[in-house]
Amino acid sequence: MMPGINGAANGSTAYGEVAADKIIKDEHKPSAPSQTNEEDMQLVLQNFRLLIADLCQQFGMGHPGGAIGMAAIGVALWKYAMRYASHQPNWFNRDRFVLSNGHTCLFQYTNLYLSGYKAMTWEQLLSYHSERPDSLCPGHPEIEHEGIELTTGPLGQGIANAVGLAIATKHLAATFNRPGYDVVDNHTWVTVGDACMQEGVGCEAFSYAGHLKLGNLTCIYDNNQISCDGSVDLTNTEDVNKKMEACGWEIIDIEDGNNDVAAIVAALERGHEKGRQKPLFINVRTIIGMGSAVAGKAVSHGAPLGADNVAAMKKAWGWDTEKTFHIPDKVKKFYADIPHRGDQHVKKWNELVAAYSKEHPELAQTFKARMAGKLPDNWQSMIPSSFPSDATPTRKSNNLVMAKMLAEIPTFMVGTADLTPSVNLTHSGYEIFNPPDLKPESGAQGSYKGRYIHYGIREHAMAAIANGIAAYAPRTIIPITSSFFMFYLYAAPAVRMGALQRLKVIHVATHDSIGAGEDGPTHQPVELAALYRAMPHMQYIRPGDSEEVAGAWKTMIENEDGPSMISVSRHALPQLTGLTNREGVEKGAYVLREDKGAAVTLIGVGAELSFAVQVADALAKTGTKARVVSFPSHTLFRAQPLSYQRHVLRRNENMAAVVIEPYVALGWERYADAGINMSSFGHSLPGKFIYKHFGFDHDSMVNKVQGFLQGWRNGDVGRGEYVEL
Amino acid sequence: MMPGINGAANGSTAYGEVAADKIIKDEHKPSAPSQTNEEDMQLVLQNFRLLIADLCQQFGMGHPGGAIGMAAIGVALWKYAMRYASHQPNWFNRDRFVLSNGHTCLFQYTNLYLSGYKAMTWEQLLSYHSERPDSLCPGHPEIEHEGIELTTGPLGQGIANAVGLAIATKHLAATFNRPGYDVVDNHTWVTVGDACMQEGVGCEAFSYAGHLKLGNLTCIYDNNQISCDGSVDLTNTEDVNKKMEACGWEIIDIEDGNNDVAAIVAALERGHEKGRQKPLFINVRTIIGMGSAVAGKAVSHGAPLGADNVAAMKKAWGWDTEKTFHIPDKVKKFYADIPHRGDQHVKKWNELVAAYSKEHPELAQTFKARMAGKLPDNWQSMIPSSFPSDATPTRKSNNLVMAKMLAEIPTFMVGTADLTPSVNLTHSGYEIFNPPDLKPESGAQGSYKGRYIHYGIREHAMAAIANGIAAYAPRTIIPITSSFFMFYLYAAPAVRMGALQRLKVIHVATHDSIGAGEDGPTHQPVELAALYRAMPHMQYIRPGDSEEVAGAWKTMIENEDGPSMISVSRHALPQLTGLTNREGVEKGAYVLREDKGAAVTLIGVGAELSFAVQVADALAKTGTKARVVSFPSHTLFRAQPLSYQRHVLRRNENMAAVVIEPYVALGWERYADAGINMSSFGHSLPGKFIYKHFGFDHDSMVNKVQGFLQGWRNGDVGRGEYVEL
Repeated sequence: MMPGINGAANGSTAYGEVAADKIIKDEHKPSAPSQTNEEDMQLVLQNFRLLIADLCQQFGMGHPGGAIGMAAIGVALWKYAMRYASHQPNWFNRDRFVLSNGHTCLFQYTNLYLSGYKAMTWEQLLSYHSERPDSLCPGHPEIEHEGIELTTGPLGQGIANAVGLAIATKHLAATFNRPGYDVVDNHTWVTVGDACMQEGVGCEAFSYAGHLKLGNLTCIYDNNQISCDGSVDLTNTEDVNKKMEACGWEIIDIEDGNNDVAAIVAALERGHEKGRQKPLFINVRTIIGMGSAVAGKAVSHGAPLGADNVAAMKKAWGWDTEKTFHIPDKVKKFYADIPHRGDQHVKKWNELVAAYSKEHPELAQTFKARMAGKLPDNWQSMIPSSFPSDATPTRKSNNLVMAKMLAEIPTFMVGTADLTPSVNLTHSGYEIFNPPDLKPESGAQGSYKGRYIHYGIREHAMAAIANGIAAYAPRTIIPITSSFFMFYLYAAPAVRMGALQRLKVIHVATHDSIGAGEDGPTHQPVELAALYRAMPHMQYIRPGDSEEVAGAWKTMIENEDGPSMISVSRHALPQLTGLTNREGVEKGAYVLREDKGAAVTLIGVGAELSFAVQVADALAKTGTKARVVSFPSHTLFRAQPLSYQRHVLRRNENMAAVVIEPYVALGWERYADAGINMSSFGHSLPGKFIYKHFGFDHDSMVNKVQGFLQGWRNGDVGRGEYVEL
Repeated sequence: MMPGINGAANGSTAYGEVAADKIIKDEHKPSAPSQTNEEDMQLVLQNFRLLIADLCQQFGMGHPGGAIGMAAIGVALWKYAMRYASHQPNWFNRDRFVLSNGHTCLFQYTNLYLSGYKAMTWEQLLSYHSERPDSLCPGHPEIEHEGIELTTGPLGQGIANAVGLAIATKHLAATFNRPGYDVVDNHTWVTVGDACMQEGVGCEAFSYAGHLKLGNLTCIYDNNQISCDGSVDLTNTEDVNKKMEACGWEIIDIEDGNNDVAAIVAALERGHEKGRQKPLFINVRTIIGMGSAVAGKAVSHGAPLGADNVAAMKKAWGWDTEKTFHIPDKVKKFYADIPHRGDQHVKKWNELVAAYSKEHPELAQTFKARMAGKLPDNWQSMIPSSFPSDATPTRKSNNLVMAKMLAEIPTFMVGTADLTPSVNLTHSGYEIFNPPDLKPESGAQGSYKGRYIHYGIREHAMAAIANGIAAYAPRTIIPITSSFFMFYLYAAPAVRMGALQRLKVIHVATHDSIGAGEDGPTHQPVELAALYRAMPHMQYIRPGDSEEVAGAWKTMIENEDGPSMISVSRHALPQLTGLTNREGVEKGAYVLREDKGAAVTLIGVGAELSFAVQVADALAKTGTKARVVSFPSHTLFRAQPLSYQRHVLRRNENMAAVVIEPYVALGWERYADAGINMSSFGHSLPGKFIYKHFGFDHDSMVNKVQGFLQGWRNGDVGRGEYVEL
């Protein structure tokens, strides 16, 4: 217990004194708001608002306004509408909640505390913005913590995350539910603020959710018309409801979102109705910082209300101005039935699954394996042991490696941002994930059982939705996204969030070098690899031929530390059979061709790996021995012991390393003394001309390496210097 | 002339044989489509479609379908609606055209050719996807080329670019127009495809354009309902018109966009009407690849139609199947009046400006200086020569440096993605850029004269709109954007396009290190600097105190090679007065404190520059002499001669360099032998605790450097290795 706290609950569990099971016995459905009189409901709401105010006051930091404004939404969700089990927070079929307006995190933390999540102790709640590095109340909700489904904060993405969660439910339901046995039927709830409504990624997700007819998704719009700069009228005067209707959503308006809990609950219950064909948008008018002197003002958004203002709130509501963090007994009792009700949800679901297992034993076994995140034991054997020897674009190699696995392992859901003909990730007989009743005449038929997702030209939402799918349950579905590598810059904010959350998502990035050719510099990603090589918990891999693609996929499927990205070519690459090996890929880099007497190590990468081999051959003819290293992944290589790294690179005064990669050099300075790299954006030229245009033709490369080696031997290169050739 | 071409025009100008001024004398307004009979109009449309088909056939590459489908739109724009001067392509008051669906570039190139742009010779038109590196017909339109306003390709951004152009017009018009003298009144036209409609950046821009009531903007939707994956129904079934109406746009439907030129022209003319209060959305139903056997199919999008199909088209339309690239005389005559009409536009405008100069001589002088892109001669003197010595967040230093300049130089338009209270870029008496009739009761008043733009929470659109503003005319307006550094990942695809186009845009990125503190890892940009340090033509600068901020702004304002980004702290930094100097910043890095007998160089950067000084002081007490280098910009440093670089870094066997920066190391390996860097994402902890949490406290840093130096002296560090401390 921290000093100065008028403790309302003791020890490490909320409401230790009130035995929940004493209050409600077999009540499975929540009580209606009408069972609580208006005065008591106001007490509950005031209590919530004052807790938020006190929490921000405590260390003079925080975001009080939005959380205070959403008090009634919180009661409606955690007390009444959501189906979850606070004492069994990982119950598979729980409703999912996403706080897209993540800066209002106190809204969620306080509700987690009040509804009895065990990890969210009183001390933990009070640790918001404290010096505790183990606080469960960081500045934005984080997935690692009990009761948090996804990390949010970068605005708008939470909407797409929620769409991903709702897709996962739809897909698992279509796959596993049977008449009388809705073993997967949870709902997904997402709250958004005015900012989320403006972000492009949110717009993309709204549009796609309406298209998908996600009746199992409800978006609750905390419409307080205030953002950091002041009135939303400064920058956004669109007709939100009409826009959402146009996107295929059902709209419910709540006029008094500050007090009318009953109306909000009624709207939320509409969300829970079965068989709905549209996602639900609840437009709730609230007042930011409601009840305080700065109510309705932007200043209440990101700074404490101030001691005087908080005292004035307490006084106006008849609360003791001397008490902070006070929770009256009536409020405790109000929330006390929640853990028990949650346990009842789980009990009932367990009974359902038990009955299902009797009636559908094989299906139930599969279902349980999926819930446990298990791949078939033989998945590795589905990767071919060898590949055709003719030149192959590595984007096609992906298909050679994965076609069988994609067809046979239902865990994988492949999606694309409208590049099906380019990314080569379809498998024979694949079914499209789409509502079953879309216009079949347009070729848009599909079902929720489908595992191929047409995300549309919405790269950012694609990655954020994939995060949501992956977050539904670990490895129950492994989402694979795909697009041109360059457009993973559009997706980058969500790819990053996947890395931050260590979500198992696989990104397939094609057209990954200047070899993309005539599409030109807008499509040639010369600098993007630097971002993904720098990103923590991201495995960025550039394989050089089909064999290395095999290694990349094995590594990615085994990777439990975060997302992976395989970066492959549009154009055909020679197969370096006998040189490349998949095991080498798992170590990030390996010796492709050793030579004890070598004077230089040539590092080859991905689509241009064969260039290094060719240059080595040419140098040999001039009497310069060169060894060749294949270097598909910085991240994987850095994870190796220093001894292995030195064994691969063998750098010393007599042995320089030269990397060949038509990306900017940034990052290679760690592993090489010189590089044939790009120092500019690309150019629109067909693939067969572009390499020469930028000096990546055979003769230019050989000359550059020879010139560098001469300088190296002459001592022209200073210690630690990297020479751009 | 290339072989196999049945030349329609000779030499290097289009229609050399037909003297335009013989045809139309003083006709300033275009002829109406009704003056051309239906048969001739069909000939024109067929001719256009066959040219596109032949151009893709030529080298077996290209995107024919969309361009073919938009034939009638092209005629309506270039022949009738747009006010431009093909022989004076840089006429200041020309209508601007943006091809947001940039892959249909042949649509634009062919129209440039037909309307007589001099640079777009017949040979140049035929160079599409050839081996010519100097082709004016790259795979997507590029700003460097005559008649192209902006480089497009990454979808959706063109919409935001067009919004930027329209903002520039509105602002210049409000600033310089006087009754009877509309010296700036051009219209902006943007074509979009189904993909642009789905991209988030497009959605953001649509919403904001409606809010701004940009009646000088028309969006022409090439609604062919086909994208790469097939029918748009696969992924998007929203009610587009209703959505656009909700965003504040006026809608016009065109049912037969393939043939009904008159209807399209009528719609476009609505766009040109003065005093309009809404941007105009023209929903044009077209057929992709119209007229070919693959019409209406996705396969016509990104690959040539095939020789047989093209021959069949020609046959069906009664054209000679043996002839390629044929332009009948009737078609030549149809387009022949365009250059003359353009000259008349310019002549009339010149007369207007001449009269304006007489009636408003001072204003006209200012207007001409702005058109010439001139800043006041004394702009540098507006930067203070010294700063307060108390600890200052560099985000506040921005204001110290720029407040006077922002107030007094109308060239600068500052904008923010809803972070006005955080980024500190307002100046006294600033006016908001907004429609003059917005609800004043909400504090949203403003005018188009305003130079402070509330972009809303739309980072991606903000940067793309800024590109549009900058592209209106070089340095006539210098747009400044602002947000947290982390959210320049949302904006990155547009920042990149600014760099690719070398547009003069200044990005102000605040909260730029783990010092951002309690907002947590979602807001702490540990890896983002790698992207901007790798990006060609991007000046990324992290200044360490107010003095360095002054140097950064001077550098950015003088930079004519592309955009710049200044990356500043949220928290207060000590002023290293007497050590830091603004001239050093311009060189990217400089010696902050020299010591001939030093054993190590400590590199300090930006918000943590003072750490390097502190560590050097501590090392000195233990007998280890350290020199200190301030290193605000990789880009600027790399541009220095090698001799200067060596002078600053002084690396050799006896002198190691250690960088201190709480970002991931990637990129520093070039300049340092070791680093105290981040190897993970950040953490939610208040600023005063977070540095220690990650080992950036005084004692940890000193110990790490000492430990490293011991290893360095012992030879534990291999040549070229970078040690993460």
